[in-house]
Formats: sequence, structure tokens, C-alpha cells
Amino acid sequence: MDALQSTLALLDFAAVFVFAATGALAAARRKHDIVTFGFFAAITGVGGGTLRDLLIDAPVFWIDRPSYLVVCLAAGTAVWVFGQRRFRARLLLWLDALGLAAYAVVGAAKASAFGVPPLPAIVMGVLTATCGGIIRDVVAEEPSVLLRREIYITAALLGAAVFVGLQLLGIAALPAGLAGFAAALALRACAIVFNWSMPRFPGKDEG
Amino acid sequence: MDALQSTLALLDFAAVFVFAATGALAAARRKHDIVTFGFFAAITGVGGGTLRDLLIDAPVFWIDRPSYLVVCLAAGTAVWVFGQRRFRARLLLWLDALGLAAYAVVGAAKASAFGVPPLPAIVMGVLTATCGGIIRDVVAEEPSVLLRREIYITAALLGAAVFVGLQLLGIAALPAGLAGFAAALALRACAIVFNWSMPRFPGKDEG
Amino acid sequence: MDALQSTLALLDFAAVFVFAATGALAAARRKHDIVTFGFFAAITGVGGGTLRDLLIDAPVFWIDRPSYLVVCLAAGTAVWVFGQRRFRARLLLWLDALGLAAYAVVGAAKASAFGVPPLPAIVMGVLTATCGGIIRDVVAEEPSVLLRREIYITAALLGAAVFVGLQLLGIAALPAGLAGFAAALALRACAIVFNWSMPRFPGKDEG
Repeated sequence: MDALQSTLALLDFAAVFVFAATGALAAARRKHDIVTFGFFAAITGVGGGTLRDLLIDAPVFWIDRPSYLVVCLAAGTAVWVFGQRRFRARLLLWLDALGLAAYAVVGAAKASAFGVPPLPAIVMGVLTATCGGIIRDVVAEEPSVLLRREIYITAALLGAAVFVGLQLLGIAALPAGLAGFAAALALRACAIVFNWSMPRFPGKDEG
Repeated sequence: MDALQSTLALLDFAAVFVFAATGALAAARRKHDIVTFGFFAAITGVGGGTLRDLLIDAPVFWIDRPSYLVVCLAAGTAVWVFGQRRFRARLLLWLDALGLAAYAVVGAAKASAFGVPPLPAIVMGVLTATCGGIIRDVVAEEPSVLLRREIYITAALLGAAVFVGLQLLGIAALPAGLAGFAAALALRACAIVFNWSMPRFPGKDEG
Repeated sequence: MDALQSTLALLDFAAVFVFAATGALAAARRKHDIVTFGFFAAITGVGGGTLRDLLIDAPVFWIDRPSYLVVCLAAGTAVWVFGQRRFRARLLLWLDALGLAAYAVVGAAKASAFGVPPLPAIVMGVLTATCGGIIRDVVAEEPSVLLRREIYITAALLGAAVFVGLQLLGIAALPAGLAGFAAALALRACAIVFNWSMPRFPGKDEG
């Protein structure tokens, strides 16, 4: 349990950091100032987890532990200092994939810990993993990551479902969490590298 | 009271289903995959009610009763299987009208049941009825239903106000709810069929 | 303490009124009807404070005190009646500045009163001050106030930080609040009048 808690806490900080960095990278594309960097880093880094906590009626995680905000500001500052043109688009994609995989598991695990049934717990993993990026794209007026053609939500769904499913089968939380993380990351990585996508809606064209 | 509860529960499921279908139809227009269908179905189907529950500090309705999520996934699957080009735009409009009318009453009724005063209860009906669609349009990058010219919010407002007003006059919840539902649906239907709209802001033009 | 409460309450109503007016002015630009005026007035007027209350787990402020909604509707009606072309853009900017300064202090003060630590309390001031406008711009499909080049979030941050910092130094809440309000308003005013902005991200251009 201790190893699980530590692993979850580490994944949690890592996910906040990488999502915060994607928020700051979105701010960098528009050449914003340092405060706006911090703002975008914060709403992207903690946005998904905040929605999860509101929904499961948990205390919002970053209010009692301001270190999460410090992590967001550190990510924003890191992007400001090191962010260079050639890294940005590609880096954002991979950081986003790491955060997606980590948050899918962390979100489902926290929801389960608060007594949420399996199906809504999976949904909570998906929301935690995707909503930070959705908020970032809506507020920054970027093309939404949701509307990309490659697999995205599906990777979060796979990770959360693997974690919840393995736990239902009696597997301990730590290996179940690592399996979920690995499954989500592997699927998203294949989507990025090989341009994998799910079958499209087969209906006739609109136009 | 039993009949009221049953009617409310039925309206609630129906509203979730039809809003979920409009979310899936938005996904269909962009030719998304089945998981994205489910995602849009879920956020549109339960989005307005989720906001209501957060605001009135009620447990979020779909977390303890995963059947709501199953309804959303069923709606998404139904659109995937049956969705054809010629049905879509028109069908979406009418499903949205049904969901709008049902949610205006359900939202106001649940808020009243949680002790919310009349004016905020009416607002809660309007928010429940409109926010699922607003979230869908913002996330799917569709033109917002709010910015359409025909009567939309006004229909939700009428339905919620009729329900709350009749209850204040001592009418039982069931007939008050049906009257509110009918009023909202009738007004929205007239707006769709006859292109009714409210008087516009009379100020001079911007340009 | 009494003077503080009264001042905070007054600032709160004033901030709701001016933000509500900016929401109605956004509706005026699109020539919406009176109900949509009220809707935009309400979501802009109470949006930031609602998010704050959800995050700090306080009862949402306008549900138990419907007078806030009445203030929003009054602001919407005022814009409908008095809104003229030449006032609009400029007026919106200054009303927004007043609301920003008031809400930065009110948001941080309420969060502190609910036991939120200093850093998240400052963040709460920033969110309260900026999220009403962000919601307005996202829903009304206006260019986001966040993406403007002049100082905006920074002014809210300054106001909240001055208030929280002075309180940490032992200054009473009333003078600390007035100092925070004045600081935020002065900085935003300079940004509007002199077109002040913070240094931009120095990275190379994207294109």
C-alpha cells in the first residue's frame, strides 16, 4: 500500500508537471508573458484532477497541498527558459502522452478510493486524463486535441479500464496501475508514431 | 409522489438519452471513432445535470447510478448504427428540443427538492437544460446553440418558470411538471417550425 | 470586522454588476434577445465566484442569496435600455477592469476565510477575477480576454497578492483589501491607457 501510495503520488506530480508544460507550450506558441505562462500551466496541470475531485466530492487536491501549484509554476518557468521552437510541437505531444497515461490511472484510482463504482471510476480516469488538455485548448483557442484523428481518448479509456479491470480480478493496485499506465502509454505512442486511428464513423458525408 | 418520482426519473433518462444522441450526432458530423462518440454522448448527456448537482451540492447523479452512463453509451451506439446523413441535422434539433424541455423541469424540480429558493431553482432548470448543449458545442467546436437566432434559452426559462410558478400556487408537482414540459416543448417547437425569435437588441449596429 | 464585511459585500455586488454588464454587452454585440442578455449577464457576473465556491467547497453564493441574480438581471436590463454603440467597447473594458480588481480581492478574502493557504488563496483571487470573463468569451465566441496582449491576469495576480501579502504582514483586512483593489485597478488602468504589457516569451517565432 505504501509503495502504491508513493507510486501514485509520483505519477500524480509527474502528470501535473507534464500537463502544466503542455499548457505553457500553448502559451509559448502565442508568445504570452510569464504570468500567462503560469496561468495556462496551472489550469492545464490541475484542471483534469480538479474536475475529478469536484465530481467525486473530494477536497480539491491542490488547495491543501500548494506544492502542486509550485510544480505548475516550475513547469511554466522551465518552458520559458528552455522552450525553443524546434522542440515544441513534438515535445508537447509526448509530454501530453505521458500525462494522459498517468492521469488515466491516477484518476480511476482516486475515484475507486472514494467508493465510486467501476464504470464511473473508468469515466473518471478518462475525464482526469483528457479535461486538462480540453480546457487548455478551449481557453487558448487551439484546435482541440479531441478532434485529432489519431487515438487519444481511447488510450485513456484503455489505461483506466485495464487498471479497474485488473483490480476487479484481484490484482494488487500497484501492478494493476503500472499495467494501466503502460497500456495507455503504449497505445498513445503507437498512435503518435504509426498514426494509428480507430475506425471512423461510416455514415455518408455531410457535404 | 410516487407517480411524480417515476415521471421525473423517466424524463431524466429520456433527457439524458436525447442529449447524449445530440452529442453523438455532433461526433458523427466530424466522422469520429466510436470511443469519441461515447465521450461526446456522455458529456452532452450528463453535462447539464452534473453542473446542477455541483451547484446545489448534491451527489453527482451518474456516479452512484451508472445506468445513466449506459444510457449515454446506448445513445452513442444507436447513432453510430442508425445515423444517416439525411436524419442528422433535423433529428438533432428535435431531440435537443425534447431534452431541453425535460431538463428544464427536472433541473428545477431537483433544485427545489434540495431547498433552493424559487428564482435560483428556475436558473438551475435553465442551466441543466442548456449547459449540456453548450459544453457539446464548445468542445466539438460547433457553432453554439446559444448563438442561434431562434428562441432557445427562453423555452427552457418558460418551462422552469411554469413549473416553479405552478408549485408556488399550490399545484401538485406532477401536473406542474407536465405543464412546464409542455410549455417549453411547445415554445421550442414553434421556434423550430415557424422560426420564431424574440425581439432583438435594438441598439445601433456595431460595424 | 463589520466595516470589512460591508466593504467586501459592496465590492462583491459591484463586481457582479460590472461583470454582468460586460456579459450583456457581449450579447449586445451579437444583437441577442433580452433572455440571452440575462443569461450572459448571469454567467459572466457569477461565473468566477461560482468556480471559487465550488473549489473551496463553500455553498455557491448566489443560491442562498438570489439578490445576486437580481443584480445580474438589472445589469442586463440596464445594458439593453442604455446600451449605445459608442459606449460599448470602451465601457466594457473599464467595467471589466473594476470587476477584475474587486473580484481579485473578494476571491482571495473568501478563500482565506475558508482556511485556504496563502498561495492557493492568491490563485483563487485570480480565478474569481478572470473566469467569469473567460466563460463569457468562450460561450459568446468572442476573442478571449486572456489572449489580449496587455496586462490582464497580472493585474488580478497583483491585487490578490498584495491583499494576501499585507494580511500575512499583520495588516487588517480592510486596508489590505483596499490596497489590493487599488493596486489591481491601477495596473489594469495603466495597461488600458498606456497599452502596458509584460515582456513576451523570447523564443523564436513559430512560423
